[in-house]
Amino acid sequence: MTDLLWPGDHRAGPIFSDAAYLAAMLRVESAWLDTLVDAEIAPVSARAELTAAVSAADVEAVAVAAETTGNPVPGLLELLRERIGGEPARWLHRGLTSQDVVDTALMLCLRDALDRVCHELSTHVRTLAALAATYRDSPMLARTLTQPALPTTVGMKFANWLTGLLDGADCVAALPQLPVQAGGAAGTMAAASELAGSPADAVTLSRRLAAALGLADGPPWHTTRSVITRAGDALVTCCDAWSHIANDVATNSRPEVGELAEGRGGGSSTMPHKNNPVLSVLIRRTALVAPPLAASLHAASAGSIDERSDGGWHAEWAALRTLCRYTVVAAAQTTDLLAGLVIDTDRAATNLAAAGDLLGEQRAMTELTGKTTRGDYTGAASHLIDAVLQRAHRHLEAT
Amino acid sequence: MTDLLWPGDHRAGPIFSDAAYLAAMLRVESAWLDTLVDAEIAPVSARAELTAAVSAADVEAVAVAAETTGNPVPGLLELLRERIGGEPARWLHRGLTSQDVVDTALMLCLRDALDRVCHELSTHVRTLAALAATYRDSPMLARTLTQPALPTTVGMKFANWLTGLLDGADCVAALPQLPVQAGGAAGTMAAASELAGSPADAVTLSRRLAAALGLADGPPWHTTRSVITRAGDALVTCCDAWSHIANDVATNSRPEVGELAEGRGGGSSTMPHKNNPVLSVLIRRTALVAPPLAASLHAASAGSIDERSDGGWHAEWAALRTLCRYTVVAAAQTTDLLAGLVIDTDRAATNLAAAGDLLGEQRAMTELTGKTTRGDYTGAASHLIDAVLQRAHRHLEAT
Amino acid sequence: MTDLLWPGDHRAGPIFSDAAYLAAMLRVESAWLDTLVDAEIAPVSARAELTAAVSAADVEAVAVAAETTGNPVPGLLELLRERIGGEPARWLHRGLTSQDVVDTALMLCLRDALDRVCHELSTHVRTLAALAATYRDSPMLARTLTQPALPTTVGMKFANWLTGLLDGADCVAALPQLPVQAGGAAGTMAAASELAGSPADAVTLSRRLAAALGLADGPPWHTTRSVITRAGDALVTCCDAWSHIANDVATNSRPEVGELAEGRGGGSSTMPHKNNPVLSVLIRRTALVAPPLAASLHAASAGSIDERSDGGWHAEWAALRTLCRYTVVAAAQTTDLLAGLVIDTDRAATNLAAAGDLLGEQRAMTELTGKTTRGDYTGAASHLIDAVLQRAHRHLEAT
Amino acid sequence: MTDLLWPGDHRAGPIFSDAAYLAAMLRVESAWLDTLVDAEIAPVSARAELTAAVSAADVEAVAVAAETTGNPVPGLLELLRERIGGEPARWLHRGLTSQDVVDTALMLCLRDALDRVCHELSTHVRTLAALAATYRDSPMLARTLTQPALPTTVGMKFANWLTGLLDGADCVAALPQLPVQAGGAAGTMAAASELAGSPADAVTLSRRLAAALGLADGPPWHTTRSVITRAGDALVTCCDAWSHIANDVATNSRPEVGELAEGRGGGSSTMPHKNNPVLSVLIRRTALVAPPLAASLHAASAGSIDERSDGGWHAEWAALRTLCRYTVVAAAQTTDLLAGLVIDTDRAATNLAAAGDLLGEQRAMTELTGKTTRGDYTGAASHLIDAVLQRAHRHLEAT
Repeated sequence: MTDLLWPGDHRAGPIFSDAAYLAAMLRVESAWLDTLVDAEIAPVSARAELTAAVSAADVEAVAVAAETTGNPVPGLLELLRERIGGEPARWLHRGLTSQDVVDTALMLCLRDALDRVCHELSTHVRTLAALAATYRDSPMLARTLTQPALPTTVGMKFANWLTGLLDGADCVAALPQLPVQAGGAAGTMAAASELAGSPADAVTLSRRLAAALGLADGPPWHTTRSVITRAGDALVTCCDAWSHIANDVATNSRPEVGELAEGRGGGSSTMPHKNNPVLSVLIRRTALVAPPLAASLHAASAGSIDERSDGGWHAEWAALRTLCRYTVVAAAQTTDLLAGLVIDTDRAATNLAAAGDLLGEQRAMTELTGKTTRGDYTGAASHLIDAVLQRAHRHLEAT
Repeated sequence: MTDLLWPGDHRAGPIFSDAAYLAAMLRVESAWLDTLVDAEIAPVSARAELTAAVSAADVEAVAVAAETTGNPVPGLLELLRERIGGEPARWLHRGLTSQDVVDTALMLCLRDALDRVCHELSTHVRTLAALAATYRDSPMLARTLTQPALPTTVGMKFANWLTGLLDGADCVAALPQLPVQAGGAAGTMAAASELAGSPADAVTLSRRLAAALGLADGPPWHTTRSVITRAGDALVTCCDAWSHIANDVATNSRPEVGELAEGRGGGSSTMPHKNNPVLSVLIRRTALVAPPLAASLHAASAGSIDERSDGGWHAEWAALRTLCRYTVVAAAQTTDLLAGLVIDTDRAATNLAAAGDLLGEQRAMTELTGKTTRGDYTGAASHLIDAVLQRAHRHLEAT
Repeated sequence: MTDLLWPGDHRAGPIFSDAAYLAAMLRVESAWLDTLVDAEIAPVSARAELTAAVSAADVEAVAVAAETTGNPVPGLLELLRERIGGEPARWLHRGLTSQDVVDTALMLCLRDALDRVCHELSTHVRTLAALAATYRDSPMLARTLTQPALPTTVGMKFANWLTGLLDGADCVAALPQLPVQAGGAAGTMAAASELAGSPADAVTLSRRLAAALGLADGPPWHTTRSVITRAGDALVTCCDAWSHIANDVATNSRPEVGELAEGRGGGSSTMPHKNNPVLSVLIRRTALVAPPLAASLHAASAGSIDERSDGGWHAEWAALRTLCRYTVVAAAQTTDLLAGLVIDTDRAATNLAAAGDLLGEQRAMTELTGKTTRGDYTGAASHLIDAVLQRAHRHLEAT
Repeated sequence: MTDLLWPGDHRAGPIFSDAAYLAAMLRVESAWLDTLVDAEIAPVSARAELTAAVSAADVEAVAVAAETTGNPVPGLLELLRERIGGEPARWLHRGLTSQDVVDTALMLCLRDALDRVCHELSTHVRTLAALAATYRDSPMLARTLTQPALPTTVGMKFANWLTGLLDGADCVAALPQLPVQAGGAAGTMAAASELAGSPADAVTLSRRLAAALGLADGPPWHTTRSVITRAGDALVTCCDAWSHIANDVATNSRPEVGELAEGRGGGSSTMPHKNNPVLSVLIRRTALVAPPLAASLHAASAGSIDERSDGGWHAEWAALRTLCRYTVVAAAQTTDLLAGLVIDTDRAATNLAAAGDLLGEQRAMTELTGKTTRGDYTGAASHLIDAVLQRAHRHLEAT
C-alpha cells in the first residue's frame, strides 16, 4: 500500500513494507529451524516450509495480535504453530526470544533499504561526475548569504553537490556489516546452550544463523543499539546531501534566476502555466523530517535498560522503517532530478554579468602582490573539480 | 491496515487512515460543489454524489499519482472527472486550489483524532479522580531522584498524574476551532471572487464551506501553519502526561517494588512466568517519538515561504497523521492501563516502613518551631488532592 | 557575557543570564523567608537582606558546587548561611526543597523573557499593520512551490506575515499565568505544614509566596511539567512566524528578485560589494534550532517519574534558558528587520509583468460563468487584509 | 565561566569555551599569515604575534560585534588590524573568507573535545573490562520489560555496557580526520590563487595551513557539512551508551533493588538520609538533550544552499559547541560513576533467588532434547564476556 500522504512512497515498493517485514520474520524463524536441524539438535522431521504457511494476507491479524505481548512475534508463532503442526511446531523458535526475531528481521529489511540507497547513490555519483566535467568551465555566479559573491563555474557547483553525495556514501559504506541477533531471552544464549549442549555450540548456532542470512555474527545487542542509530545517522546524512541539491535547484529554478530546472516539473490543479520543481520540493520535505526520525532512534537507544528495554526498543521499529522508506524514496527522486536536470548556461552567464563588479577582491589581491590579475577569477575551481572527480571515480570503482 | 511495527495501532481504527483521508478530500470537494450550486454560481445539474464515485479501492491509484504534482488532489480530480462527467466534472473544484483540499481534509481528520483524544482524556480523568479519592490516605513512599524521600499517599501520586492529564486536556481544549482553507491558488480567493462576482461573495463562499463542514471560517492560512503546530504540541503534551503514568507503573511494577501492576500484563514467547507491563511499555514508546514528530511540524512551519511552501507544507501531512494515530493509540492504552490498574497498598506500606527513618526533616522543623510533630508527615496531601479533584470535576462538567 | 557563537546574543542582555538566574533564586529564598516572618512562624530577627549577601561574582562558585547535589540550590544555601549567619541562616529555606527554588526561579526568568517577547511582538504587529495598509494595492507576484502563480499584492504578503505573528502572540497570551512552586521535598508541603501548624496554613504560605513574586498559586508541579513545555511551544511558534518573514526577505532580496531588502545589510570580510540580509539569516538560524529545543523540553517532561525526576527535570533548565534567549534575540532582530524593510514596488511590478500570462485560471472561470473578467485578479486580497488588520488592532488594544 | 544551569559544566573546563574559540580563530589567522610569509607571498615584515594582540578580555567586544556581519571574524579582524598595524594588518586574512576562519576554528575546538572524549572512553573501557572480569560469575537477575526473566551474571551486564562503549568509541574513531577550510569567498580559492600566482600554488597554501594546524587537507566544504554532522552523531552515540549505564545504575540503586550504587551519592537540601545517584541523573539528563542537538546539526546541514548558506551554517556553531561540552561533561561523569561503582553481589543473589522459578524455559528445552539441565542456566555468558573483553583489549591496544 502506497502512503497517500507521502507522495512518491511507491518508489520504495516492497522495501520494509509490512509484508516484507512479515516475510523477514519468517525467514529468520525458518533459518533458525534449519540451523537446529542441520546441527542435529532438532530431528529432520522438524524441517518445514514456513514461508508458505503465512502470507501477506496474515499481516493484519499478526499486527492486531502484537499489542498483547508488545511485539509481533508471539502472534506470528501462534499462527505458524497452528498451521505447520507436529515436530516443526514443537521445534519452532526454540532457543530464540522475540527480540531475536524482531531485530534480525529489522536487519534484513534495513539491508534491502541500504542496498537500494547505495545503488541510487552510485547512479547519482555517475551522473553528477559527468555533469561536473561537462560544465567545468561554464561561468556562474557564486552566491553567499543569498547575495552575489564571486564568479564560479557550474561545474564547481556540481562538484560541491558531488562532495556531499560522496560523504553520504562514505557514511553508508562505513556502517559495520549488519549483525544477527540470537541471544535468547536474557541475551546469554541460555536456551541455545541448553539445546546445543554447550555454550560454545550455542555460539556456533548463532554463527550459522548469521551465515544463512548473510549477516554478521557477534555478541547479542539487545540493549546496545548503535547498529540502529548508526544506520539512521547515515541515512540522514544522505538526505542532507540530496537536500543541498534540491535547495539549489528549487531556488535556481525560480524564473527570476532561471539557471536550473527540473526536466519534468509538476503542474497545478488550476494554473496551466505552472512548471513546479516537484522533485526538489519532495526531497526538501524529506530532509525536514529525517533528522527528527534519527533523533528518535537515539532517544530510544539512550533509553536502553536491563536486558530488554521498556519502551526504547519498541520505539525503534516504526521510526527505522519510516526513515528507510523515506530515504529510499528521496534517493530515487534524486536520481530522476539529476537525470533530467536542465542547465541554462546562457542564463547563468547573464546573471553573472548582471551582478556587476565582483572583482573588488581580486583587485585588492593584485594591489597587495603587485602582480597582474588572472583572468576570470574562478581560482582553483578546475583543480578542485578534478580532485572531487577523482574521489568519485574511486567510489565508482569500489562499488 | 494495522501497522505491523506499531503494536496497538488498530486502536486508532479508521482515524486518519488513508481511506479516511481520501473520504475527507471527497467531502471537501463535495461540500464546495454544493456551495457553488447553493450560491447559484454553478447550475443545479452540477450537483453530484462524489462520495460514491471514489472509494477506498482507489487509494492506491490516487497515492501513486500524487507524486507527479506533489499532492494527491490533481490525481483525485482526474479520477472524479472521469467518473462523474458532464456538469459536475466541469464545476468540480472550481475556485479551489489543491492546498485548499489537502488542508481542509487534514482538518477533518485531525478533528476526529482530537475528538477521540478528548473522549479518552475524560475517561482518564474520571477513573483517576475516583482512584485518587479512594487511595487518598493509603501511605506510600515518595521518591525523589529514585531514592526514598518522605511519606506520601497513593492518592497524592494519583492526584499528580491527574494534574498532568488535566494540563493535557487544557491544551487540547485551548486549541482554536479548526479552520477551513479556501484561499484559492494564491490565497487571495481570486478564482472564487471571479465565480461569485465579488470579493465579498467569495468570502461568503468560504464561510458557507466552513459551516457545511463544521469548521471555523477565516483568512487563508496557506503559509501560516500554527493551526498544525499547536495541535501537534497539544497532542505531545498529552503523551507526556501519559508517559508520566507509564513510567511510574513500569517502575513500581518491578517485583522488587511491587506497588503497582497492570491488570492484564503481557506474556513472553518463551518464559511462562512473565507478566510484563506491556501497556506502560507501549505508552512510553509513544512518548519517545512524539516530541520529534511535533518538532517536525514546527520545522515545516518555519520553512513557510512565498504563497505556498516548497517542501515545508508537504512535510506536515504524514507527520501530523502519524502523531494523531500514535496519540489516539496511547490514549486508548492509557484508558485500559488505568481501568485495570492493580494497587498493592500493603506493599506500599511495607516499602515505606522499610525505607527507615524519613522524618529527619520533620524533626528539624519541630526543633525550629518548638511545636510537637504532626502525625504521618504527609503534610497537605489531602488538601492538595481535594484541589486537584475539584479541578477534575470542573473539567468533567465542562465536557 | 555575550555568546560568541550566537551573534546577536547581546540583545537578550540580562534576560535569563546566569547572574539573573542567581538573583532569581535569591529572590525566591528571600520572599519565602519574608513569608515565614510575616506569618509569624519565623521570628522577626530571621529577616535578612539576602540579595546583598550573594552577587554575580558568586555565580562561578555556585555553578561549580551544583554538581555535588545535581542542582545549584544547596551550594547557594551554604554560601548564604555562611554570610548571613544567626537566625536568618537558621530559618533560610525551611519548608522548601531545592526544586521549589529552582522551578520558581525558572518562572521568574521565563516571565522576563515572555514579557520581552510580547513587547517585541506588539511592535511587530504595529509595524506590519502599517506596512500592510500602505502596500495594500501594490501589485506583486504570488509564488507557489517557488514558481509564479497569480497576481497578489505586497499588502497581502504582509497580511500573511501578520497572521503568523498574531498566531504566535495568541499562543503566548494563552499561556496560563506562571505558577509558584512550593511543595517541599515530596510535593506534599509536609515541612511547611509542620512549620505553619496545619495543612491549610501551609497552603496559605504558598499563596503568599506566589503573591509576593507575582506568580500564580496552585498545587505543586514537581513532576507535571506542562508549564515548561507550553512556554517552549509558544516560543517556537513565534520563531516559526519570524522565520516565515525571514525566508521571504532572504529570497526576495536576491538581486535577481530584488523586491525586498534589509535596511542595513551586513558586509563581508573580503567582498566590498556585499549587502547581506544578515538579520534574516540569523532569524532563520534560530528557527532551525528552536524546534529541537522545545522537543527536548517535551522529552524531559515525558521522563517525569516518582516525586522528582531522575534526569528529566535537570534537562529542562538549560534548554529553557537557551530557547528563551534565542527567542528574545530573534524577536529583537525581527523588530529591526521590519523597521528597516525596504520594499521596491517597481521591481515587484516588473517581476509580475515578466512572469507572463498568469490569467489562464481567470479566463477558465469566466468561461464557466459567462461573466466578464474582474480587473487585476487579486480577488479578495483587500478584504482579507482588512480582516487581518482588524485582528491586529484588537491585539494592540488588548496589550 | 561555568554554566549555572548545567551542573558539571566545569568538567569541560576550557574545551570549546568562548575564550578557547577566540584563541582558535587567532591560531587560524596566525597560521595563515605564517603560511603566506613562508610561501614568500607576504613579506617577512608581515609576520606578527597575533595571539598576544587579542585576549579573552576581548571576547565580549568581538561577540557583540558579530551580529553586524553575522559572524565573529570581521569584528576580530578589525580589532587585530588596529592593534598590529602595518604590514601584518595589510596581509592579515588575505586569501581567506570569514567562513574559512569560523570553520577551521570549529575544527580545532572540536578536536579538543573529541580527544578528551576518546581519553575518557579508554578509561571507561579499562574500568569496565576489569569489572566484567571480576564479576564474571556473580549471579544476577536478568530483567526484560522491567520484569524478572532469567539468571545472568553481573559480569554479563558489565560486558553489555562495555559493548555500548566500544560501539561509541568505534564511531568516534571512524570519523575522518578533521579538515581545514581554506576555500576563500566562493570556495574556489580565487583570492589565494591570485596571491599564490596559480591554482596549484593556492592548493599548496591550503595544504600547508592544514599541516600547520594538524588538520586534514581537502577541497572546501562550505556547503557540505557532513564533517559536523558525523561528529555530532558520534558524540550522541557515546551519550547513548553512557545513558544505558546510568539507567541501570539509577534503577538498580533504588533501595528496593539495591544491587548497584554510586560511590559518592548526592545529598539533599533538606533530607539528611538521602544518597542520590547524582552522576547517573546528570548523565541521563545529557542523553535527553543530545539527540535533538545532533538533529539540529543535520537540519542545518540539510539547509545548505548556494556557496554559503543563509542560516544553516550559522545554526551549527552553538549547537556543536554545546553538544561537545555536554558530551565531555557526561564522559567525565561516567568516569567517576564507573570508578566509584558499588556492587552488592549479595543483594543481586538475593533478588535472583526472590524472583522465584525462572527455569521454565530451561525445563522446556531439556524436555525437547531429552538431555539433563546444565547448572545455572547462564548459558554462554562467560563466553560472551570473553568476546567483549577481547574487543576491549584490542581497543585499548589501538589507542
